[in-house]
Amino acid sequence: MTGGPVDLHAADEAWLRRAVDLARQGRPDGADPNPRVGALLVDAGGVVVGEGFHAGAGTPHAEVVALREAGGRAEGTTAYVSLEPCAHTGRTGPCADALLAAGVARVVYAGADPTVEAAGGAERLRAAGVRVQHHPLTAAEELNRRWTAAVTSGRPFVTWKVGATLDGRVAAADGTSRWITGPQARRDVHRLRAEVGAIVVGTGTALADDPALTVRDEAGEPVGRQPLRVVVGRREVPAGAAVRADDHWLQVDSPDPFDTLKPLHDKQIRHVLLEGGPTLAAAWLQAGAIDEVRAYVAPTLLGAGPALVGDLGVATIAEAVRLELADVARLGEDVRLTLRPAPARTNPTTPVPEED
Amino acid sequence: MTGGPVDLHAADEAWLRRAVDLARQGRPDGADPNPRVGALLVDAGGVVVGEGFHAGAGTPHAEVVALREAGGRAEGTTAYVSLEPCAHTGRTGPCADALLAAGVARVVYAGADPTVEAAGGAERLRAAGVRVQHHPLTAAEELNRRWTAAVTSGRPFVTWKVGATLDGRVAAADGTSRWITGPQARRDVHRLRAEVGAIVVGTGTALADDPALTVRDEAGEPVGRQPLRVVVGRREVPAGAAVRADDHWLQVDSPDPFDTLKPLHDKQIRHVLLEGGPTLAAAWLQAGAIDEVRAYVAPTLLGAGPALVGDLGVATIAEAVRLELADVARLGEDVRLTLRPAPARTNPTTPVPEED
Repeated sequence: MTGGPVDLHAADEAWLRRAVDLARQGRPDGADPNPRVGALLVDAGGVVVGEGFHAGAGTPHAEVVALREAGGRAEGTTAYVSLEPCAHTGRTGPCADALLAAGVARVVYAGADPTVEAAGGAERLRAAGVRVQHHPLTAAEELNRRWTAAVTSGRPFVTWKVGATLDGRVAAADGTSRWITGPQARRDVHRLRAEVGAIVVGTGTALADDPALTVRDEAGEPVGRQPLRVVVGRREVPAGAAVRADDHWLQVDSPDPFDTLKPLHDKQIRHVLLEGGPTLAAAWLQAGAIDEVRAYVAPTLLGAGPALVGDLGVATIAEAVRLELADVARLGEDVRLTLRPAPARTNPTTPVPEED
Repeated sequence: MTGGPVDLHAADEAWLRRAVDLARQGRPDGADPNPRVGALLVDAGGVVVGEGFHAGAGTPHAEVVALREAGGRAEGTTAYVSLEPCAHTGRTGPCADALLAAGVARVVYAGADPTVEAAGGAERLRAAGVRVQHHPLTAAEELNRRWTAAVTSGRPFVTWKVGATLDGRVAAADGTSRWITGPQARRDVHRLRAEVGAIVVGTGTALADDPALTVRDEAGEPVGRQPLRVVVGRREVPAGAAVRADDHWLQVDSPDPFDTLKPLHDKQIRHVLLEGGPTLAAAWLQAGAIDEVRAYVAPTLLGAGPALVGDLGVATIAEAVRLELADVARLGEDVRLTLRPAPARTNPTTPVPEED
């Protein structure tokens, strides 16, 4: 009972799920440099003596919050943690050491730490004689899906958001686009913005629409920590532009998405929202820099106007950029599609009836 | 208790719903010149002595089927009918007279007959001393929604079907389009074709894609009664074209949709499927000739190629053609949207947060 995933008693799994539930109280995945983590300490009698979650970079880790609540009662308990306790000294000391110092007898965790810097907590605890069990849970993986993708790939997770008509247009012939989608879809976009560290647009969008790129509430007032605003392109953004309302913005003049993503990763931004326009979206798609697409389709037809994505170098149907449909939801009069790049093109091998 | 809608006992409503269920066994709404109707006869002891449904033009009406099954036991029963019994002598005699002749004591029906020719059955029965009750049911209206729209408007109900990519394209830059949507969506289109009396395409589509426009099964074999194939446009359709496989086709050279719909209505076609292309769809949309849109959106991007609808004369966002979203469904990897023309443009009167 020293390594790898093991079967747990139902009670153990229930406590571990409680740790995942606690973790959800932290900042959304991708909105913070750190992963979401929840922890609880349970004594031999099945009593919870401490619990906690990580509220974001600069605040104590989940295990530390739980240990503080437990005080002397932590000794001999089992710690249930949604992610492997860290072995890393950052703004706080390693959680593995804190659990050892408190005399925790057993540690059960759900997600393995994918980072080079912080991994090794389980090993350190085992070496000190603590019984450690790793029990993977899908819910724990999903909790930090974007963060995990970012720290393993070395660049932020990128969601491309686009709002378009049924005929795939993002504006009318004269360039007007307010509003293609309805209030529910627009609220959903503001929830999405609250989950990212940066919002990226091209200079074309910045100059044509003068977007504020802030997270706002129902009344239109900015709420919470605002994402970094990033404008990509060589054209100058005037000093009076809404994206330049304060210093929390930057401009990148390279068309290569990785020239934008690298400095954002260095700023510990784990999730980036690409909001357009069509030319930038096409470039990032072709470069393989998009991990997720959030498309809001309005029940509207324009018959003319710019399409949602620029030229992709696709000449014939077999070269189409295929995505996987992860989710469909109705938001008022609009439809939200969540899509992910398809791992490989699906060539149907069984004959299908012809359509025409 | 002689006129108008009345409250019914729960038992009465249950029998009426049974009549609607029977009606559903007939041909789909729009696939036949006649409405779908179900009927049953219930004696004083609550025993069903006869039931039936209308199987399509040229076959007996639902009431007649039920009366035949009941024979002499029909006397003194209550007839539950999903639609007002007809007072019309067509290929068969009026159902009102048949119910009278059989000595039915009471008639309860759900839908009023909207046609000039066949209406008046309830009046005729009342005049002869039968107790008649009209109890509207939404399910009964929905059953013949397209047929009712056609007979009241004097033209077939028109569904526009379109399959497109997420960026609103119906073909790649080189014109190839097989297949944009997956097998489940294509099967759904064949189910839809089985519900219509005619399929309409423009000469552009007929010449470019050479579609067969038939209803086919999983193995690609034609099944059941086939819809009339209609090609709109002045260009000649070659004798070897798939739409000309047999005589069940016609060509209309007028761009005015009503020049196509009038002769189809005269042929007692109640539901027409418009399958493209973009130019024809734009003309019919602008003429107000489209009652329903069935859009199959594939999780695919092309970045170039023809859009799903041609120029609509829309210059700015306020002029967008707005539809109402009636239904959203996932079909394999594709999304099916069912939309209807919006009765009037919705101008939000309450302030909403800005998107950008």
